[in-house]
Amino acid sequence: DRIILPYEERAKLAVNPVAKQLFSIMATKKSNLCLSVDLTSAVDILDLLEKVGEHVCLVKTHIDIIEDFSDNFVTQLKQLAQRYNFLILEDRKFADIGHTVSLQYSKGVYKIGEWADCVTSHSLPGDGILKALNNVMDCANRGVFLLAEMSSAGNLISSDYTEATVKMAAKYPEAILGFVCQNKKTFNEPGFIQLTPGVQLESSKDELGQVYNTPEKVILENGADVVVVGRGIVAAKSPETQAVIYKDTLWKCYMKRISG
Amino acid sequence: DRIILPYEERAKLAVNPVAKQLFSIMATKKSNLCLSVDLTSAVDILDLLEKVGEHVCLVKTHIDIIEDFSDNFVTQLKQLAQRYNFLILEDRKFADIGHTVSLQYSKGVYKIGEWADCVTSHSLPGDGILKALNNVMDCANRGVFLLAEMSSAGNLISSDYTEATVKMAAKYPEAILGFVCQNKKTFNEPGFIQLTPGVQLESSKDELGQVYNTPEKVILENGADVVVVGRGIVAAKSPETQAVIYKDTLWKCYMKRISG
Ligand SMILES: O=c1cc(CO)n([C@@H]2O[C@H](COP(=O)(O)O)[C@@H](O)[C@H]2O)c(=O)[nH]1
Ligand SMILES: O=c1cc(CO)n([C@@H]2O[C@H](COP(=O)(O)O)[C@@H](O)[C@H]2O)c(=O)[nH]1
Repeated sequence: DRIILPYEERAKLAVNPVAKQLFSIMATKKSNLCLSVDLTSAVDILDLLEKVGEHVCLVKTHIDIIEDFSDNFVTQLKQLAQRYNFLILEDRKFADIGHTVSLQYSKGVYKIGEWADCVTSHSLPGDGILKALNNVMDCANRGVFLLAEMSSAGNLISSDYTEATVKMAAKYPEAILGFVCQNKKTFNEPGFIQLTPGVQLESSKDELGQVYNTPEKVILENGADVVVVGRGIVAAKSPETQAVIYKDTLWKCYMKRISG
Repeated sequence: DRIILPYEERAKLAVNPVAKQLFSIMATKKSNLCLSVDLTSAVDILDLLEKVGEHVCLVKTHIDIIEDFSDNFVTQLKQLAQRYNFLILEDRKFADIGHTVSLQYSKGVYKIGEWADCVTSHSLPGDGILKALNNVMDCANRGVFLLAEMSSAGNLISSDYTEATVKMAAKYPEAILGFVCQNKKTFNEPGFIQLTPGVQLESSKDELGQVYNTPEKVILENGADVVVVGRGIVAAKSPETQAVIYKDTLWKCYMKRISG
């Protein structure tokens, strides 16, 4: 069962080098917390990461919501990633035909491929999207999390959809870090990482369909390896304090899980 | 049957004002051609639109692939839209939880909501995505095309998915222009517009999963109202000549369709 193996062991089983690296960072930093920095100010994001960078294994961006984006922001973000030893996931949720996705990955103002260690992608358009990403990415230091399930209420993902997504990933093992999903049954492969969003300590939902679970639920019952927290931290009075609370809580759940 | 009604009639039946406007533009300009300007240079896009603007009813952008994007580009694009009487569709394919999509629509470098008459959205995340867009959009001059089907090979859209998408749209009629889809059976509502991509005269597919049909097929058999052409025009030796050929061919098919 993949979920009882420690991250160190799973690092050895990962095919994609970024997946290996993420497993190792988690083990080293004793953190399975991915911070979703959903703020619209570059300055605020950099300030926040100065404070919480040491507590997270992965920083998830929505680069396209930042009002004062600049190349300099990317440079500083990369420096923080280096200093605090975290990886960067651009949560782009690619969802187009392959030709368009190649351009969206490499071109434009954001040039995601130049700085994001990994990206998210939907499987909806078919495997042309993975073929395209696989073509434009250097899988030695880049990779994809494929969305196999979503956290939001009323989403249209069926069990057939999830199954087809996992099969699709199996065709491009070098390019795939793992899945964004909600259930431990979604996949078995221990070299893949389960990234699970929709976690908050204080709330069970938002006004626009987001559904929250507790750390215990997502890690112990649902098999999450890396847990995404956004507003639970970024909208807190003291994000720094909250980051430490989430980090400790999530890590305790993981320790409990691997100790059987 | 919606597909035998002329655009003028359907304009009267549309609920969303942008849908009304698009039907009217089609009737006035005798064009049901949507040009997908999938070029990575702002200068090239503006040059191209100077030449072909008069032949199209809708210009579809992937704003995030443009290398030299600037606010000035948007200003010039809007001036061309005014001069040549076409609308602008930003093909963003929103595909996230509602909270994230509100930010992606309004914020960031692109501020899509400020200039795009309409946008595309996936239904995958559930109706929170439409609730979010409906909240942040002014439906008097903005609207959404919802993807109910895709053109690409091996896409994971099932008939249940398509049906659920059409039902979802029915909950937000003021916000919806119509559907991006491939089949006339997908919906009945004559006030909604069927936007169909995957059309080329010279080719039946690309290397990354795109599938092409002919104008006859998509308009006469499959019910397309507006037809999206990208590389068929933008990658042609003379895009201007090709634009006219596509425009005339597509319009002839439409005329044949409404004459029974
Ligand atoms: O199914 C998903 C997938 C993702 C990531 O791919 N997300 C993202 O996690 C974050 C959750 O933020 P929150 O903790 O503030 O709800 C948001 O950035 C949202 O876009 C979800 O919320 N649900
Ligand atoms: O199912 C779809 C949906 C869309 C639009 O929402 N598209 C888009 O149409 C265009 C088709 O371009 P092409 O004619 O060059 O293949 C691309 O911009 C692609 O992203 C598709 O190609 N297929």
